[in-house]
Amino acid sequence: MDLNKLLKPRKMAVVGASEKPSTMGGDLLHNIKLWGRMEDVYMVNPKYDTIFGEKCYHSISDIPEDIDTVVICTSKKAVPGLLREAASKGCKGAVVYASGYGETRDEEGKRAQAELTALCHELDMALMGPNCGGFNNYIDRVCSFAFIIEDRNFRGNIGFVSQSGQLCQSLMENTTRFSYMMSVGNCSTVYVEDYMDFLVDDPDTKVVAVYVEGIKDPSKFISTLQKAARKRKPVVILKVGASEKASALASSHTGSMAGADKAFDAIAKKFGVIRVKDLEELHAISTVLSTLPELPAKPTFSAMAFSGGEGVVCADSAFYNGINFPDFESETRDALQAMLPYYATANNPLDMTFTMSYDSDVFAKALRTVMDDPNIGMCLLCFTILQKNIAPDVITMIEGIEKVARQGKAKPMAFVPLMENTRERALAERLAAVGVPILPPTHYAFSTLRHLADFIQYNADEKDLDLPVATKGQTVGAGTPVALTERVSKEKLGKYGMVRCVSL
Amino acid sequence: MDLNKLLKPRKMAVVGASEKPSTMGGDLLHNIKLWGRMEDVYMVNPKYDTIFGEKCYHSISDIPEDIDTVVICTSKKAVPGLLREAASKGCKGAVVYASGYGETRDEEGKRAQAELTALCHELDMALMGPNCGGFNNYIDRVCSFAFIIEDRNFRGNIGFVSQSGQLCQSLMENTTRFSYMMSVGNCSTVYVEDYMDFLVDDPDTKVVAVYVEGIKDPSKFISTLQKAARKRKPVVILKVGASEKASALASSHTGSMAGADKAFDAIAKKFGVIRVKDLEELHAISTVLSTLPELPAKPTFSAMAFSGGEGVVCADSAFYNGINFPDFESETRDALQAMLPYYATANNPLDMTFTMSYDSDVFAKALRTVMDDPNIGMCLLCFTILQKNIAPDVITMIEGIEKVARQGKAKPMAFVPLMENTRERALAERLAAVGVPILPPTHYAFSTLRHLADFIQYNADEKDLDLPVATKGQTVGAGTPVALTERVSKEKLGKYGMVRCVSL
Repeated sequence: MDLNKLLKPRKMAVVGASEKPSTMGGDLLHNIKLWGRMEDVYMVNPKYDTIFGEKCYHSISDIPEDIDTVVICTSKKAVPGLLREAASKGCKGAVVYASGYGETRDEEGKRAQAELTALCHELDMALMGPNCGGFNNYIDRVCSFAFIIEDRNFRGNIGFVSQSGQLCQSLMENTTRFSYMMSVGNCSTVYVEDYMDFLVDDPDTKVVAVYVEGIKDPSKFISTLQKAARKRKPVVILKVGASEKASALASSHTGSMAGADKAFDAIAKKFGVIRVKDLEELHAISTVLSTLPELPAKPTFSAMAFSGGEGVVCADSAFYNGINFPDFESETRDALQAMLPYYATANNPLDMTFTMSYDSDVFAKALRTVMDDPNIGMCLLCFTILQKNIAPDVITMIEGIEKVARQGKAKPMAFVPLMENTRERALAERLAAVGVPILPPTHYAFSTLRHLADFIQYNADEKDLDLPVATKGQTVGAGTPVALTERVSKEKLGKYGMVRCVSL
Repeated sequence: MDLNKLLKPRKMAVVGASEKPSTMGGDLLHNIKLWGRMEDVYMVNPKYDTIFGEKCYHSISDIPEDIDTVVICTSKKAVPGLLREAASKGCKGAVVYASGYGETRDEEGKRAQAELTALCHELDMALMGPNCGGFNNYIDRVCSFAFIIEDRNFRGNIGFVSQSGQLCQSLMENTTRFSYMMSVGNCSTVYVEDYMDFLVDDPDTKVVAVYVEGIKDPSKFISTLQKAARKRKPVVILKVGASEKASALASSHTGSMAGADKAFDAIAKKFGVIRVKDLEELHAISTVLSTLPELPAKPTFSAMAFSGGEGVVCADSAFYNGINFPDFESETRDALQAMLPYYATANNPLDMTFTMSYDSDVFAKALRTVMDDPNIGMCLLCFTILQKNIAPDVITMIEGIEKVARQGKAKPMAFVPLMENTRERALAERLAAVGVPILPPTHYAFSTLRHLADFIQYNADEKDLDLPVATKGQTVGAGTPVALTERVSKEKLGKYGMVRCVSL
């Protein structure tokens, strides 16, 4: 199946369109009108002749031209007929919000999902869902996400695929910027790994970020990771199911089988996948990879702090995460010492004292001195941006950073606060504009930098990227849902935790 | 030295008082006028006859009555003379902001600090600082903190002692509520452990929270911890210096010797001290201990999630931190199952589905059902409070929680979000009013609950709380700064990581 018609439709139909708020059809239209390509959307509802003063069609068949994608806001019962009707208009993509399918614990739901899947294969229809929230394509202004979210500029380069709509909404309320944001639900027909493959190929996506409860097509998953590793496109995965409790819950959430956690870890290591433990970590590393103009040449860090206390806490947090602050070269030390008051010491981490914060030229000079040290790969600014009082220092620092960025040949930089720090969104956006992300508080900051360090040290050329995925008596990859089982993966895990072969 | 005159003065003098913003004397007066007992403050400055229309004295000696505490906003040079002058007015407490003392790397600074210390002992003067930010006593409305912070209700029951002023400001910008907030700097005369001892005794303080770079009087420290353990008053300590880099930086920040990290860990374990790794964790566990009306009877948790995805992520985060979600009793399961749609399962964690979120009575009934399960010690609500769209659900849930709280016999509850969640301060305060804290995102949430579980399982009665603190040739405790050294602590650490004796 080709996902281009689903995710990049020229024309789209919304069935169940309405003016009513707090309905799927009403909230979706609200979103489309806000930022989507409304001119390429056909509204369909047998109850209305017009919606918001624009023509509403009574059926899909009434639409005067072919459509690429249909968004179905109705309940489960109407879905099969609507899919057939859409297919007759050349439609190859569908978004189905309705629930009551494979996520239920009864046979009826599972049968309904099997029938839906069979129908989609018959119609060659790439279906997102069921039991999903839809997607937003911020590159082409295609909106099919049915939940109301705040109005801000979301366009960026992170492609996010999620089996949870609530996780999408949580990221959208933060500062994350997306190329695509997809709430994909049960993945009856198109799997998480298919969306990932699309995003690895997509030139507008710099970072592929994923929340997944279960992989259904290991062969496609592996080939996607191979491709990403060879392209050096970062893949960040929050794959749950480390615990039995989570596995059980995932099964009743999207009907997924969480599979073997250790096998997943080994696969992540082999292909340089960044496996994160929660959503905050996914957000942080994705934002860093999305924001930095280029990655550090080596995983060594400098830290500059305005407050000794902040520097000390960061030094310990870095230590807990294996992040290394090498000593400065003697030339660097001498240059910094000349800028510091007599009582201060040019260590790394560096307690800058007040002398470096009152003038952006002085701060820029100090930052450039640290940055030019050959031992340093990336520069951290350990500072909690407070709203009151310290504002002049923050502005001085940001102006200094902008000056250094404008000079060119800047090494990567990031802010590390001790407490949550994105309330000042205008400052965060000003920093992002010169390629400087603000990280979450210290534990998350340094676990994120650990992921970054591991990613830049991963070299696909040194790895054997072959991983035969065998099955018992059948070839996987033709849409048969399977999971990496614990028993098999333990048998097949090679020494050093490397997966050599995964049977299913 | 008695800290009561320093921290609970009847009358206080501010030397260097001024109307000028961005000066220590000016910003301090701004703060005092905002919420302090201005009527008990004497302003002193030889340059002015009035400040803000009120009388300014030209010298301490001119003040018509005795004072308990003097806050010195001048530079280092004037300090000794001012302390002698204050002593002649019966003053027994002083706050000195000036820097250039023991935190410098030159002999002059260290000599100045030794002289200052000797003078304070001569005058029996409890001095906070030097190189400090001052303190706020929110119980008696005494303000000596010289940095501008936002205007909100800070009064609560957390006593915070910090060797970093910036860390104080960071907590103050968050939702932390204090009995006392102290930026104590170099601790030349009064040590961190002395302030801790005051807070352990203080009836207005429920939680003692500490940022410390070095312990100077182990004997006092140990006796304070013994007292706290016997009273079951929680002590939360962020003690830096796990890494060499942090130790070196602490030395140049406040002149502290970080001491042996492993010995500190063993002492924390012996006395039930909650040792945290960073400021966010300190904030989180302090807030939980401060907000919960009572502690859980046992360290077993239930989780209720509106979104399956959030429940799954929380289940794994809990697993990583050893937090246990026991199965519900069959009566609980049956009662919950009757409230759920046919396709959902009454697991713990519980995916509530939409059926439990539309009506606060229904939600309250579900919460009470879970709460009454005998296997459960504390109820978690795994939910990221979003600002848009989900607001009705949030309000429903909060109303349900309020109903359960009003019924009485409620077990402890907390919110666990997947991303930072205190932007909605009005909601956070509404929940805090019924004893329900909002935790930071999952890693911090579950490491905080781990600390809580450990704290409630700690039983001082089962521990030998004696810990002889011996010295080589001298008795420690008379103001001689010493640190627990790695060599000695390793020698003296008993089996099972218990400290039996610490020599110095």
